Amino acid sequence: MMITSLQNPRIKAAVKLRDARQRRRQGRFLIDGLREIHRAVLGRFDLLEVYFCGEKCTKTQMRTLASMWGDFESEPDEVSPEVFEKLAFGDRAEGVVAVAQTPELALDTFVPPEDALVAVIEGVEKPGNVGAVLRSADAAGVDVVVVADGGTDLFNPNTIRASLGTIFTLPVCTATTDETLAWLRRYKMAIFTARVDGVVDYTEVDYCRPAAIVLGSEAKGLSTAWSGEDVTAVSLPMRGKADSLNLSAAAAVLFYEALRQRRQENAVHGPEDPGGRSP
Amino acid sequence: MMITSLQNPRIKAAVKLRDARQRRRQGRFLIDGLREIHRAVLGRFDLLEVYFCGEKCTKTQMRTLASMWGDFESEPDEVSPEVFEKLAFGDRAEGVVAVAQTPELALDTFVPPEDALVAVIEGVEKPGNVGAVLRSADAAGVDVVVVADGGTDLFNPNTIRASLGTIFTLPVCTATTDETLAWLRRYKMAIFTARVDGVVDYTEVDYCRPAAIVLGSEAKGLSTAWSGEDVTAVSLPMRGKADSLNLSAAAAVLFYEALRQRRQENAVHGPEDPGGRSP
Repeated sequence: MMITSLQNPRIKAAVKLRDARQRRRQGRFLIDGLREIHRAVLGRFDLLEVYFCGEKCTKTQMRTLASMWGDFESEPDEVSPEVFEKLAFGDRAEGVVAVAQTPELALDTFVPPEDALVAVIEGVEKPGNVGAVLRSADAAGVDVVVVADGGTDLFNPNTIRASLGTIFTLPVCTATTDETLAWLRRYKMAIFTARVDGVVDYTEVDYCRPAAIVLGSEAKGLSTAWSGEDVTAVSLPMRGKADSLNLSAAAAVLFYEALRQRRQENAVHGPEDPGGRSP
Repeated sequence: MMITSLQNPRIKAAVKLRDARQRRRQGRFLIDGLREIHRAVLGRFDLLEVYFCGEKCTKTQMRTLASMWGDFESEPDEVSPEVFEKLAFGDRAEGVVAVAQTPELALDTFVPPEDALVAVIEGVEKPGNVGAVLRSADAAGVDVVVVADGGTDLFNPNTIRASLGTIFTLPVCTATTDETLAWLRRYKMAIFTARVDGVVDYTEVDYCRPAAIVLGSEAKGLSTAWSGEDVTAVSLPMRGKADSLNLSAAAAVLFYEALRQRRQENAVHGPEDPGGRSP
């Protein structure tokens, strides 16, 4: 039966998830759009509730939704356009919204793959920026993104949207900066911090080993914790009048330089030859 | 004397420039913020009118403004906070706005430097995207950005803001796609189109010669005009679940790969040795 009342208790609780405090309190968040919901299914997120508005879905969308039915915790509920409007974010055309369980994202228990390429963003609070970095990290084959000192609202609708849903399929962990450094050191990662005043050119370091690329926010840069003998500050050449790239552009350039080196290494030594990697 | 009336004819005309049609009709546009105005001065734009609101400027900002006084066509006018609010865009804190003459940006008469690195974006209409690409192009030392089939509202406030003002210091031209292709061919540029289905890896082509990197919008890609024996479709590896980078991230990766190759070439052969360049 179609839910038409905004007083329905489940709808009331779900609508509240548009608010960051409520997401924290309820331990749940909303996912807008079929593509994003599909990626959440791929990423094994718990989809507790799914709401759709028949009037706002095309036949193809209804079929896509039907094909995922078995992956939801409970059957999707049809809601009236009025109810859907309260649930949905912004101007999305698609008539599907899901309520998902916020997962544990503790870095401490995450075991990186061998030869991991890790991305760390510190103090980045703008949801669109976090999402854009996640999308580039996904494309470049980064193994895990650590959101350090980034606030507690990772599953903000703007982050999900800017990430194109890669937030669900790419391993993402949250931690403090100290926890992040301890974790990187435990796994003996080379640590490359991107700094405007970095001494070493970003193309002249070796990413063909377990390595982390660390970026700060455009406004504040990186905190002083990122120092030590195992930390190398790298910089990108700046040839123009402005003195910086935006965060997601700098991230993409660094991730793809790491991937370029790793692919070249594999082409020379083969992906199966552990001796081919630099120590 | 401070302008306090919204009925002042110059203020009325300037406020209208918040509208794209009016920008086209008047052949003028607005620049918000001191940094942006400073870059427009550097780029030799004609600043016809400058308005400031004393209440909204710090002493440092007033000093910066005073240092540019001689570069304006006429003396800045102080306006009341109420008038300033109508002139200014969004939530900028700084109390300075300028009216500038829209320049001629015809590609036809633009002569590229030797060994030019050119960026072309086709059909990109979202102002924030155009601005973000300009910022990355500036950083990577691109010589000119051609906005092909991009609509006529280049000096949109969102473009200016996202470009960090680099739109004023980096050569930017507008043209149709056909004009762009003719111009690239006149100067015998190597043409590299970024396509999801490009056959050649983007790291395996030679950017150390006059070259153009051509990108389309995320939604529509590039038009069919970009074909021919002198056009090479390149692609970036995609290792993730999403099948694309966002436009400005892809642009940054390509521009910096070109810069990486050119710097390497210079390091080997020296910047002064023309024989060091590939034919």
